[in-house]
Amino acid sequence: MKARVESVSAAPSIVLVRPQLGENIGFAARAMANFGLADLRLVAPRDGWPSDKAEAAAAGASHVVDGARVYATVEEAIAKLNYVLATTARPRGMVKPVLSPERAALELRRRSLLGESTGVLFGPERSGLDNDTIALADAILTAPVNPDFASLSLPQAVLLVAYEWLKSEGATISLGRGTSFDRPAAEGIDHDGARPATREELFALFAHLEGELDRAGFLSPPEKRSSMVRNIRNMFHRMGATEQDVRTWRGIVAALSRVRRAKGDKVS
Amino acid sequence: MKARVESVSAAPSIVLVRPQLGENIGFAARAMANFGLADLRLVAPRDGWPSDKAEAAAAGASHVVDGARVYATVEEAIAKLNYVLATTARPRGMVKPVLSPERAALELRRRSLLGESTGVLFGPERSGLDNDTIALADAILTAPVNPDFASLSLPQAVLLVAYEWLKSEGATISLGRGTSFDRPAAEGIDHDGARPATREELFALFAHLEGELDRAGFLSPPEKRSSMVRNIRNMFHRMGATEQDVRTWRGIVAALSRVRRAKGDKVS
Repeated sequence: MKARVESVSAAPSIVLVRPQLGENIGFAARAMANFGLADLRLVAPRDGWPSDKAEAAAAGASHVVDGARVYATVEEAIAKLNYVLATTARPRGMVKPVLSPERAALELRRRSLLGESTGVLFGPERSGLDNDTIALADAILTAPVNPDFASLSLPQAVLLVAYEWLKSEGATISLGRGTSFDRPAAEGIDHDGARPATREELFALFAHLEGELDRAGFLSPPEKRSSMVRNIRNMFHRMGATEQDVRTWRGIVAALSRVRRAKGDKVS
Repeated sequence: MKARVESVSAAPSIVLVRPQLGENIGFAARAMANFGLADLRLVAPRDGWPSDKAEAAAAGASHVVDGARVYATVEEAIAKLNYVLATTARPRGMVKPVLSPERAALELRRRSLLGESTGVLFGPERSGLDNDTIALADAILTAPVNPDFASLSLPQAVLLVAYEWLKSEGATISLGRGTSFDRPAAEGIDHDGARPATREELFALFAHLEGELDRAGFLSPPEKRSSMVRNIRNMFHRMGATEQDVRTWRGIVAALSRVRRAKGDKVS
């Protein structure tokens, strides 16, 4: 049932990661409704769910609040999505495409027209998304702001993304292949009919590869492990992997590590 | 003094007409600061001025709140302005130009470059601007919204206008020609200073990886080898690898295949 809903839903999912205030969830839901978005996902909302404060702040957008789904982890929330953006106040030194809200909306439109399911991640009010979560996304979405006062609130950030999504509606006609948009390198990949990998398939590949690399002693010293893992994951996200690509990589990892596994992992 | 400030101020004034809630004035001030606006004017705020609630909601944008000027009537608030827009949820059957936020921002830019002082009127939360007030404006500003849920909140409306104002900054040279101006400075893949890999470095990686895969028997049968190799190489090209990425992959390939090499490639 969930898969069916996602497969027909053209509009991106809005994923609030560990939101703190129920009011902000409600304001975000209202902004979504204003611009025609409906699929709200909450990852571990701090004050629990459902929330009376969210309901009140939604000011009539109760269909969005009532339809919200709650997940324990970001990975679960985006498992079935094909293309995921992470919102940050500014790029965090990760090698990922960086899109403005307007350009992001065009890319979300383009992918949704190709049948992909998409989502946008928003971090907690105080801290924003952490680097490990950003590493799960295909690209970074950053709004142009006044550098002297850059702190967009959570519902404001959702509003801008939703607004640009609705604005991009009129652009759908010219969003087929080979349009004139001046895209970053990882955008506009022609998958030639192949289905893009889901997040779930990518996560399984990451677990496989990182498990083998741990056994090989590659992801050390421990204090560097998380940044090494992020870099490797970012490379996969940037390549825009198809399901076939993921199968190929699973095969590569298995082939390369076959002997070591057979030897009982006795690697110095 | 007031006239002098207005004559040199390029950014539009934000004029809130009979705003009801102090919080909304504060949220609007924050949105203004986020996008580089500073001149806030209040016409007969319902709960008086100054407002502790506005100060709290401004979340650091106190320069905007503290600098706000209060007027008894709309006419006084806009007396010195050259060009005024009125925001409404939808056109009210008046014969006036109707502009989207994006187009409005371009027009505000154009006029400010010509030395005109400009402003945007926003109505009370509950009712919006009345027709007599709208009649004072040069044109109507209407945001595209979901017709089934069209009620933008006051601070949301201010946010969209301020956002489009900042976006229009890069458009000043070629105003009105529909150029692409929405980029954050860092749009494109952010390599964080890392040098993109040379083809030579990539080719060395390919040779290393493909050599190991041949030894592991992965690139078989022979008639499929060349298409498998192409697919793998394409994935690396798509990721836009840096020199550091290539080093990481060399390390991954070496780590995964370490034992097999030590054993003299005796793999079945």
